[in-house]
Amino acid sequence: MEFKAQSIADFLGGTVEGDANVTVSDVAKIEEGKPGTLAFLANPKYTKYLYETGSSIVIVNLDLELEAEVKATLIRVPDAYKAFASLLELYQQAKGNKIGIENPSFIDSTAILGKDAYIGAFAYIGKNVRIGNHVKIYPHVYIGDNSTIGDDTILFSGVKIYEDSKIGSACILHAGAVIGADGFGFAQTEDGTYKKIPQVGNVILEDLVEIGANTTVDCATMGSTIIRKGTKIDNLVQIAHNVEVGENTVMAALTGIAGSTKIGNNCRIGGMVAINGHITVGNNVNVGAMSGISNNIKSDRTILGTPAMDIAQAAKVYVVYRNLPQLREQVLDLSKQLAIIKTKLEE
Amino acid sequence: MEFKAQSIADFLGGTVEGDANVTVSDVAKIEEGKPGTLAFLANPKYTKYLYETGSSIVIVNLDLELEAEVKATLIRVPDAYKAFASLLELYQQAKGNKIGIENPSFIDSTAILGKDAYIGAFAYIGKNVRIGNHVKIYPHVYIGDNSTIGDDTILFSGVKIYEDSKIGSACILHAGAVIGADGFGFAQTEDGTYKKIPQVGNVILEDLVEIGANTTVDCATMGSTIIRKGTKIDNLVQIAHNVEVGENTVMAALTGIAGSTKIGNNCRIGGMVAINGHITVGNNVNVGAMSGISNNIKSDRTILGTPAMDIAQAAKVYVVYRNLPQLREQVLDLSKQLAIIKTKLEE
Amino acid sequence: MEFKAQSIADFLGGTVEGDANVTVSDVAKIEEGKPGTLAFLANPKYTKYLYETGSSIVIVNLDLELEAEVKATLIRVPDAYKAFASLLELYQQAKGNKIGIENPSFIDSTAILGKDAYIGAFAYIGKNVRIGNHVKIYPHVYIGDNSTIGDDTILFSGVKIYEDSKIGSACILHAGAVIGADGFGFAQTEDGTYKKIPQVGNVILEDLVEIGANTTVDCATMGSTIIRKGTKIDNLVQIAHNVEVGENTVMAALTGIAGSTKIGNNCRIGGMVAINGHITVGNNVNVGAMSGISNNIKSDRTILGTPAMDIAQAAKVYVVYRNLPQLREQVLDLSKQLAIIKTKLEE
Repeated sequence: MEFKAQSIADFLGGTVEGDANVTVSDVAKIEEGKPGTLAFLANPKYTKYLYETGSSIVIVNLDLELEAEVKATLIRVPDAYKAFASLLELYQQAKGNKIGIENPSFIDSTAILGKDAYIGAFAYIGKNVRIGNHVKIYPHVYIGDNSTIGDDTILFSGVKIYEDSKIGSACILHAGAVIGADGFGFAQTEDGTYKKIPQVGNVILEDLVEIGANTTVDCATMGSTIIRKGTKIDNLVQIAHNVEVGENTVMAALTGIAGSTKIGNNCRIGGMVAINGHITVGNNVNVGAMSGISNNIKSDRTILGTPAMDIAQAAKVYVVYRNLPQLREQVLDLSKQLAIIKTKLEE
Repeated sequence: MEFKAQSIADFLGGTVEGDANVTVSDVAKIEEGKPGTLAFLANPKYTKYLYETGSSIVIVNLDLELEAEVKATLIRVPDAYKAFASLLELYQQAKGNKIGIENPSFIDSTAILGKDAYIGAFAYIGKNVRIGNHVKIYPHVYIGDNSTIGDDTILFSGVKIYEDSKIGSACILHAGAVIGADGFGFAQTEDGTYKKIPQVGNVILEDLVEIGANTTVDCATMGSTIIRKGTKIDNLVQIAHNVEVGENTVMAALTGIAGSTKIGNNCRIGGMVAINGHITVGNNVNVGAMSGISNNIKSDRTILGTPAMDIAQAAKVYVVYRNLPQLREQVLDLSKQLAIIKTKLEE
Repeated sequence: MEFKAQSIADFLGGTVEGDANVTVSDVAKIEEGKPGTLAFLANPKYTKYLYETGSSIVIVNLDLELEAEVKATLIRVPDAYKAFASLLELYQQAKGNKIGIENPSFIDSTAILGKDAYIGAFAYIGKNVRIGNHVKIYPHVYIGDNSTIGDDTILFSGVKIYEDSKIGSACILHAGAVIGADGFGFAQTEDGTYKKIPQVGNVILEDLVEIGANTTVDCATMGSTIIRKGTKIDNLVQIAHNVEVGENTVMAALTGIAGSTKIGNNCRIGGMVAINGHITVGNNVNVGAMSGISNNIKSDRTILGTPAMDIAQAAKVYVVYRNLPQLREQVLDLSKQLAIIKTKLEE
């Protein structure tokens, strides 16, 4: 699809500067723009690229003052970033509007589908499953018995949802995510072998939760593993049995949270972080990448490292750590000096 | 399903104290119990919850002495935890008793199925595959040519098993687990490009092995990658080509074991541990979370850290590490004091 | 299949020493060889095994001088390793020659298939997808709309490719790999909730790229996430949005690269490495396992640790780190000695 500068300006309620008939068919970053693409300029640090970009159209803020000639057609709006984002959303909605049931798919006769669903080929919907309205279920999705899926939720290809799971509204689960596999619970017997502890709980994802590709959220031993409203989890993350993650928390890739731990609201957890089981992390906690958290963390802290420390302390520790061989040399040198002094004193 | 207190007591060979007609339909932890749920009390630390729990029925030990009034109906048995676990098993067996072949599925004409199998829709069973008795193969499972699956094994949705794999009896493979993908083996040529080394080995999982969701176990370059009897592996773990893991070893999520390494029996390996290739870890080795193991580890050790150390040493190292900036201050201070003394002595 | 020593020698252009009629049906490492297997000896360190191996046939170098009697039949060739590798390739080609379309599969009427394709049962090929010649698409593969797959590429079971992806020629994607899931991009609003930033870019894998099982490569926010020619990525790796990885770079399992980072050519990146977003790693950089890289890394360096250091420095740091408690003791001891001296001087 091609769009004219004038049509885009009309949609955004903006004004055109330059050729109103130029067209674009793709989007680009301003520093990588090629002819036929639309870019935006919101961050002043990127202003220099405005004068050299190859993009045909650039969305800019109303109050931007030009300091040189610009080749691109400009569209001026009150907030360039928001305007651009709303265009992207429009673009994605146009693209992603799948609807209807493809064949073959497997929908148990006891399952209830909402209206306007997309059910891709080879999707499997078990007994007593309830699916909300406007749900998109891509090919190869598995939904176990008695699970519920809220309105407007998207399950991408290959998502696996074990029985009894509850997925909220407007959630997005990316390809290969596994919801509700057994928690890792075994009791060691006297002969050293392990006996499986049956895992009879489930998983609850509240509304507006996003789960990354190939991420795993285990079911609770009893009760529920819960990810609360608005929380976003990246790819390849492990959430163990009986974990609770609060609202509006974000968690980057390859992080793991062990069993029965509680994470608060509005936390930001970096990538490859390991969080111990049976502990509590408060609200508004920021955790740097690769940190290891073994004990409770109070709210409103920013921590880093293994073992985790306040970030200011961690930064100082890192400086000494990198120079440990020199510190050791200093100590050896002091030791020698002291020996000499002692000898002198004894003389 | 609802169960009366009396029926549960009869099944467990226990005695009822309180209303024998009260019913439950779900299980709960004693501290989270709601009406209609069954809980248990085994750990004395939780005794206080007995007097406040909302659970309708609580299973307790024969010898428990009450110190206040209890609202819930009690069922007294010799071992409350074992009794509860046996109920959970019964519950799970009742739930999970899938059987029969759903359509469409793909079963090659040369494949041999045992009796009482469950084959979910969209499962794929290749040439010369042999499936034991009472096996459950969920939707979207792929079993490559010439593989064998032992009796009573469960393959959850989306498990992928490459050709020539041997899966034992009573194994459980969780959704998205990949068994037998190529080992990561390449030979660098003179121009810097890599040539693939064909990976012609396979994977052997012995009996009673459990593999977590989205865990990957690569095939051997030649010979077999082997996970021995009774070993349990959590989610998102990487087991590389030609690795051998002994019996009754447990391994937590996000751990990786590089190629050709041998891990002993009865080890407990924490989460996010990295173990180097071509090394040997003995029997009864405990490894703390986030440890990095680069060299052989003898049997009967408990290690932690990167590089891995005996846990007592690691605990001491951590204390000094966290306070490195202060240690450096002390050294600087000593250095200054020494300079002053030297000056004095030279005067 | 069984092969005679003479037939193998004829194929390799080698000469037989010993029984030319002995047969083999499998391959083995020389140190693990059993009757009926073929092994090779290339590395002098393994020569001792030649005299004890149970393998029926061993391929050896032309110039090998025997120091004792050998039971196995030998085949002498100029380069034993290359000869063996060429046999393995032949073996694998014979095994893996799947062709044709299995049913049921889902191939959109607008998709274009090349010649000699294998399309496994339950594979899904979306609108306007273009598939090259000799491509193998295993069961349960999903290929989203408008994607292209180059000649000779193999997509193993359960690979998920989002729409608009471009996969080169002679690529191998292992089971469960996810290509093109949304980048992890959210804008925090004033009330603390997160608004999804639409991810409208795609993924480009150039020719000869290998992607491990359950590895995830996210699409770009705009533009493309790119893995360049000949690069090999292991299992359970996370490549975030807008990352670019150069040519002939290898990356081991459980490594994560955050958004918009650029990795050079000919790098070797160990397992469980975390690389920060928006940085640049040069060419020919070697990164040890478990390293954490937070800043730009120049070309031609070998680094290790968290924070990452030159490997020589890291090795020295590790030694001091392991002995930190002793270093602290030394400092305390110096401090006491100094106090004594000061007292003496003041007397």
